[in-house]
Amino acid sequence: MEQKTILVVGLGLIGGSLAIGLKGFEDYAIVGCDVSQPTLRFAAEHGICDRLTEHAADAVPSADVTLLCLHPQGILDFMKEHAGRFKQGSLVTDVCGVKTAIMEGASALPECVDFIGGHPMAGTEFSGIEHAFGEMFQLAHYLVTPRETSTPDHLDLLRRMAEHIGFRDFITTTPEQHDAMIAYTSQMMHIIALSVCDDEGLFTCKGFEGNSFRDCTRVAALDVPLWTQLFSLNAPALDKVLAELEVHLADYRKALQSGDRSALADKLRYSAARKRQMNLE
Amino acid sequence: MEQKTILVVGLGLIGGSLAIGLKGFEDYAIVGCDVSQPTLRFAAEHGICDRLTEHAADAVPSADVTLLCLHPQGILDFMKEHAGRFKQGSLVTDVCGVKTAIMEGASALPECVDFIGGHPMAGTEFSGIEHAFGEMFQLAHYLVTPRETSTPDHLDLLRRMAEHIGFRDFITTTPEQHDAMIAYTSQMMHIIALSVCDDEGLFTCKGFEGNSFRDCTRVAALDVPLWTQLFSLNAPALDKVLAELEVHLADYRKALQSGDRSALADKLRYSAARKRQMNLE
Repeated sequence: MEQKTILVVGLGLIGGSLAIGLKGFEDYAIVGCDVSQPTLRFAAEHGICDRLTEHAADAVPSADVTLLCLHPQGILDFMKEHAGRFKQGSLVTDVCGVKTAIMEGASALPECVDFIGGHPMAGTEFSGIEHAFGEMFQLAHYLVTPRETSTPDHLDLLRRMAEHIGFRDFITTTPEQHDAMIAYTSQMMHIIALSVCDDEGLFTCKGFEGNSFRDCTRVAALDVPLWTQLFSLNAPALDKVLAELEVHLADYRKALQSGDRSALADKLRYSAARKRQMNLE
Repeated sequence: MEQKTILVVGLGLIGGSLAIGLKGFEDYAIVGCDVSQPTLRFAAEHGICDRLTEHAADAVPSADVTLLCLHPQGILDFMKEHAGRFKQGSLVTDVCGVKTAIMEGASALPECVDFIGGHPMAGTEFSGIEHAFGEMFQLAHYLVTPRETSTPDHLDLLRRMAEHIGFRDFITTTPEQHDAMIAYTSQMMHIIALSVCDDEGLFTCKGFEGNSFRDCTRVAALDVPLWTQLFSLNAPALDKVLAELEVHLADYRKALQSGDRSALADKLRYSAARKRQMNLE
């Protein structure tokens, strides 16, 4: 009997890190696929996968699990292009940071293929396999959006993969819930970081920045094509949370302008207590 | 000849950490002063200072350096109350995160005392000596606002203290420049974190938060009386940078709403490049 395989399509920062993390998972061979020769060379030299290929069309038909680690549009295109090639009864999953658009795209797959959306909530401000590392997902949430038809066996397999990689937990949700949450917890943080870096004082503040500045702006050095897609595919939800942020910032400005220290203290006490409460939960 | 002393007034998170970091500095004894008995007990049990006292009035007259690590109003009050007690020719400095108000308050000191404002740009979201640690200042900037009359000897002494503690660098600036910069690099980061935590989604987002969320909101769990003072003492400068942030956030909302992906990509490219450029400088 042939060895079972997990095919990782796209060996960038996330795909490369997942491949490293999956090494030694049960009796599966990890097969890496990328169109970039330098990426394949790097993967080969660092033993990142058990096997490597540049030909997705050859590797897809024998994969028991296909893990799509491309940019959002790349994932949609890949599913359409290879729809007829996936192995019957195999699991296809992805890593995209928005899920509604991906789950819609997955309707291109034939019924004999089980698609479960995935979002490993980790990353760094860098791109490319040379920045990949297996520990990236430790303490990270693994968000999963199954379809109604997804089988318990496939969900369980994905859960075991997540455990092997070292995720903190495995959270099942709906695409709509996922995208609304992610607009707030992730996408808005990126828009804030970008907006802070648009300040005219950015380059003159050198020497005056502390950890709060470094931490808030770190993610501004983002992958532009990737985030253009992520923001665009979730624009209404993102706009909604940005509108709420605008209100809360304006309330703080009013409290500052009023000169009423006790009112300001009340506001600070309220917000700080919420953060402390959240830390405890 | 009596041993020279550095008096650390206020053994909280910052004072305690500075006292630990100053241990073994040249031939100075480190004297800690606090009004709280539990704080003094903790300091004694952990050997945080060479000597401890609860009576500032007794310790001030013999101190060669007095390091005021109280809240902003506490620093102003202390200088007024003990103005006549400081040792002739001694150095008085502080750790306050705003400098214009402190430098004005220092005019209460007699001419025979040299006051140099200081702002060690570090901290955590915790308070109190039990969270103090000497490594807090490694990689941190030490911002210094001398008076025109400050002596080179005192500036040099402060620089050697900063080196001993392990600061990344020692940056001399004016109180006005300091406060304008800090409004942007520090205070605004705190207002952002607080405003993000005011979102109605805060408690339901559990399980969906990644590093960008944790990093951005970390400082929201702040010391309310301290930050009420810091924000209030620098309200106009803070309001100015918040107004600019509002514009940049609104520009991003417009780009998102327009649905024009190439315009959005252009904006992302601009902001991300600024951040990358800043990282290089």
